[in-house]
Amino acid sequence: MDPTQFETHPSKYKHWKLAVGGDTATLTMAVDAEFPHRPGYELKLNSYDLSVDIELADAIQRIRFEHPEVKTVVFAAELDKVFCSGANIYMLGLSTHSFKVNFCKFTNETRLYLEDANTSSGLGTLAACKGTTAGGGYELALACEDIMLVDDGNSAVSFPETPLLAVLPGTGGLTRLVDKRKVRRDRADVFCTTAEGIKGKRAKDWGLVDAVVSRSNWDKTVAERASSLAAKQTVVRGPAVELPALGAKITDKAFTYRSVELTIDRAARTANLTVKGPEGPPTDLTSADTWSLRAFRELDDALLRLRFDLPEIGVVTVRTQGDRAAVIAHDEALAKATTGFAREIRLLQRRVLKRFDNTARSFYAVADRADSCFAGSLLELALGADRFYMLIDADEAIAVQTSVANTGFFTTSTGMSRLDARFYGEPANVGKVLARGAEGPISSEEAEKLGLATVAADDIDFADELRIAVEERASLSPDALTGMEASLRFVGPETLETKIFGRLSAWQNWIFTRANSTGEHGALTLYGQPERPQFQWKRT
Amino acid sequence: MDPTQFETHPSKYKHWKLAVGGDTATLTMAVDAEFPHRPGYELKLNSYDLSVDIELADAIQRIRFEHPEVKTVVFAAELDKVFCSGANIYMLGLSTHSFKVNFCKFTNETRLYLEDANTSSGLGTLAACKGTTAGGGYELALACEDIMLVDDGNSAVSFPETPLLAVLPGTGGLTRLVDKRKVRRDRADVFCTTAEGIKGKRAKDWGLVDAVVSRSNWDKTVAERASSLAAKQTVVRGPAVELPALGAKITDKAFTYRSVELTIDRAARTANLTVKGPEGPPTDLTSADTWSLRAFRELDDALLRLRFDLPEIGVVTVRTQGDRAAVIAHDEALAKATTGFAREIRLLQRRVLKRFDNTARSFYAVADRADSCFAGSLLELALGADRFYMLIDADEAIAVQTSVANTGFFTTSTGMSRLDARFYGEPANVGKVLARGAEGPISSEEAEKLGLATVAADDIDFADELRIAVEERASLSPDALTGMEASLRFVGPETLETKIFGRLSAWQNWIFTRANSTGEHGALTLYGQPERPQFQWKRT
Repeated sequence: MDPTQFETHPSKYKHWKLAVGGDTATLTMAVDAEFPHRPGYELKLNSYDLSVDIELADAIQRIRFEHPEVKTVVFAAELDKVFCSGANIYMLGLSTHSFKVNFCKFTNETRLYLEDANTSSGLGTLAACKGTTAGGGYELALACEDIMLVDDGNSAVSFPETPLLAVLPGTGGLTRLVDKRKVRRDRADVFCTTAEGIKGKRAKDWGLVDAVVSRSNWDKTVAERASSLAAKQTVVRGPAVELPALGAKITDKAFTYRSVELTIDRAARTANLTVKGPEGPPTDLTSADTWSLRAFRELDDALLRLRFDLPEIGVVTVRTQGDRAAVIAHDEALAKATTGFAREIRLLQRRVLKRFDNTARSFYAVADRADSCFAGSLLELALGADRFYMLIDADEAIAVQTSVANTGFFTTSTGMSRLDARFYGEPANVGKVLARGAEGPISSEEAEKLGLATVAADDIDFADELRIAVEERASLSPDALTGMEASLRFVGPETLETKIFGRLSAWQNWIFTRANSTGEHGALTLYGQPERPQFQWKRT
Repeated sequence: MDPTQFETHPSKYKHWKLAVGGDTATLTMAVDAEFPHRPGYELKLNSYDLSVDIELADAIQRIRFEHPEVKTVVFAAELDKVFCSGANIYMLGLSTHSFKVNFCKFTNETRLYLEDANTSSGLGTLAACKGTTAGGGYELALACEDIMLVDDGNSAVSFPETPLLAVLPGTGGLTRLVDKRKVRRDRADVFCTTAEGIKGKRAKDWGLVDAVVSRSNWDKTVAERASSLAAKQTVVRGPAVELPALGAKITDKAFTYRSVELTIDRAARTANLTVKGPEGPPTDLTSADTWSLRAFRELDDALLRLRFDLPEIGVVTVRTQGDRAAVIAHDEALAKATTGFAREIRLLQRRVLKRFDNTARSFYAVADRADSCFAGSLLELALGADRFYMLIDADEAIAVQTSVANTGFFTTSTGMSRLDARFYGEPANVGKVLARGAEGPISSEEAEKLGLATVAADDIDFADELRIAVEERASLSPDALTGMEASLRFVGPETLETKIFGRLSAWQNWIFTRANSTGEHGALTLYGQPERPQFQWKRT
């Protein structure tokens, strides 16, 4: 199968139109039914699949970096009577379990990125729902700051997933309904089991939308509300920097970028991810070529390819290569810079690190070479990994180092930093490690003592210990590991974000395995066919 | 199949020995291999099944009510080298998915009840692990305040579930490890994938146990630590009140108790649960026969029977019958009483209401008779239900009323009260409703306006509207409803408790459906057989 392409550009969009005018960007959903991600279904009625969502993710990213003048994004639709009818059901019915789960995860991340753009990057977000807004369509609206629904006696917002498809509104829908919009839970219960949805005044009264507006007042009201959202924004982005193509080389054996390489051992079901540090101190913090941005974009692309195109790779060793001081110099320069562009780079790094946390593969960070550079922003990879193995070398060339990047900006989805999560039981250690890190490199032996390394071993034992650990891990059930890592990685408080990936996605994944949705007679399988689903009635 | 019996008594225990001496109760696990819950497996090596756990739940309950002098419970084992080897694997292998899920839920509730006894009822809890403490055995220990492990060069604590069985330590194990004991997450990762577990000093250093103690010092140390836990307790229970048998009449058509009745309509896959209010004001707050205790014990028993023995019943209407003023008089009397016994009754009511919240059935509360009595503690049932239907009658005999029972004592597992959860989006309504409720009954029409009733309708529409709502609900996929209700009911902050039922249980349930654990070649299926499991390697 061809590799999945996560990179795109507005000039190549098939499903969205991005128009920038003044401080407003309009993203018009105009899904081309003839261009599904894979053959076998048509993308009718502004339904979406992975291709549509890849373009959406790209558009949000580009608005952040390339259009700093934009202060509001309006989501609209080209169809007259349909805003968006959600994820394409035929696509879901044809997909493997593994694809469905990864598709849902990606769409969830994209909606969280949209919320992140709203809260961190000065972008108001308005869902202008001038027509049917169903399922994933309403979930996209829920990820916006403001939802307008046309009042035409017909257009409704709806979650038909449970009544019609025997699945959940799993792209954040259930969670955002009661936890973000705080819709009363008994009303949410009625709404989520009413296939035709709720329209007009009732949709507004129940808090499902923020405004219901007639067709005649529509354009004027969209403009007014977009403008009022823009007026609230205080975060300044810019200067504008174009995001160039990454130019990855993708083969059966490796994904190769300038600063990132993932090499694949299919027989062992393992891979090695190497992130190279910058070649020197930062010289130009106004270019998309700056290491902090380019390397993390490459890492993001590699993680997505790993998720979708390498399902059988279970364990990934994570190495770094370069000069610790150069990584730290880049971290410091970014933190000191006052431009919106620098801030956007750090926000992008934060999102990529969250994508790493949320990738269902076992990650073992490994520092076993003198040019290993787990420092600052790259140390976050070691802290996010399931384990961290360090080789003890006589001259202590192998070491880790902290920077401003470890002091709290890179929050995980729980809201804690990775050091906070590491030392959830010994919070005093966070300050201790940062104080020690400020003095200089921390050797493998000391890193183990401080609780940064899981294992530090000398060269008599190291290679064998690591090899056995990787082999053992690769021999365990992939499903059990996914569930285990989803519990251990997200220690601490739950947030709307972790609730979506924990509670909601875990239930959705369970439901996806059940005959009532995906079995031969399941509702998802039979959607659009004359045959009615047959349910197994046991409540579990 | 015979109905499941949830009632038992220490004189009938087959698997535990309860010995009370001074301020210490010792619960010795002495599982009789010959008495499994269902035929087909032996309960070797202090492994447990539902029967064993029903006795454990009974013992904790009785210590609270019948042994107020007890200030510490010591968990010990009769076997010399095994504390507890966890849930019986052969039992899990033989069980239906539905039974496994409900079994895990019950064992999770029992461990939470043990923690509740510790934090709310003045009971120190000590796990005296003088031998192998594996899987669910270590999970039982994790639910205790203090864990001692014998230091004999052999005995370890372990979670072999993931490496040996391709499932999770799902009885709170993963959650308590990192969120309660705050074991470092990379160490937890190592621990949960090391089948043989961790023993001795390392178990202590990693925070897996609180003390490692030699065999020669064992008994002395157990006594000392139990005594020091007892000395910390400040909550006073008592006077002692024996819990009599409930004397339920169980038939194919109904579960009938003195104050609770569940009638079953198998063809419609529905049931009706009626809770009768007290016959008059409280006269005797020192007897187990007092309505507040008896009715809620009956409700608890009915809910458990519903879960285990009526899997095909999807929708339950919940009605009340009696005198609102009498319910409120009982609530007020309990709240004013200063005895430990009265406090224990309220704590029991709180636990039963949580059991209700956590039952995977659609609950529609219905007030459609003049003698309906959704007041105070019984109003909690209407607030906990997925919806609340009220009939509007001309003389407003049908009404709801609040009492002290709605003001916050009955927290749900999120830590919020049911009124707080109801009005998560409009917190001011909580005070408004309580102020209005203090003035007297609230009619159906007003209850709908205040947001207490989901639907209020007059008798022209009511019966049809309710009938259609019940029929529609009963026609939906049971799996999708379970996932939907698990999201909508637990609005608001997550806690250790909700994380166990949300994140951990949802992942475990998913894993239970996967071929890698329960398929023909799955690890759980093949446990104890010479054949090795064959895994499907796709990571999801």
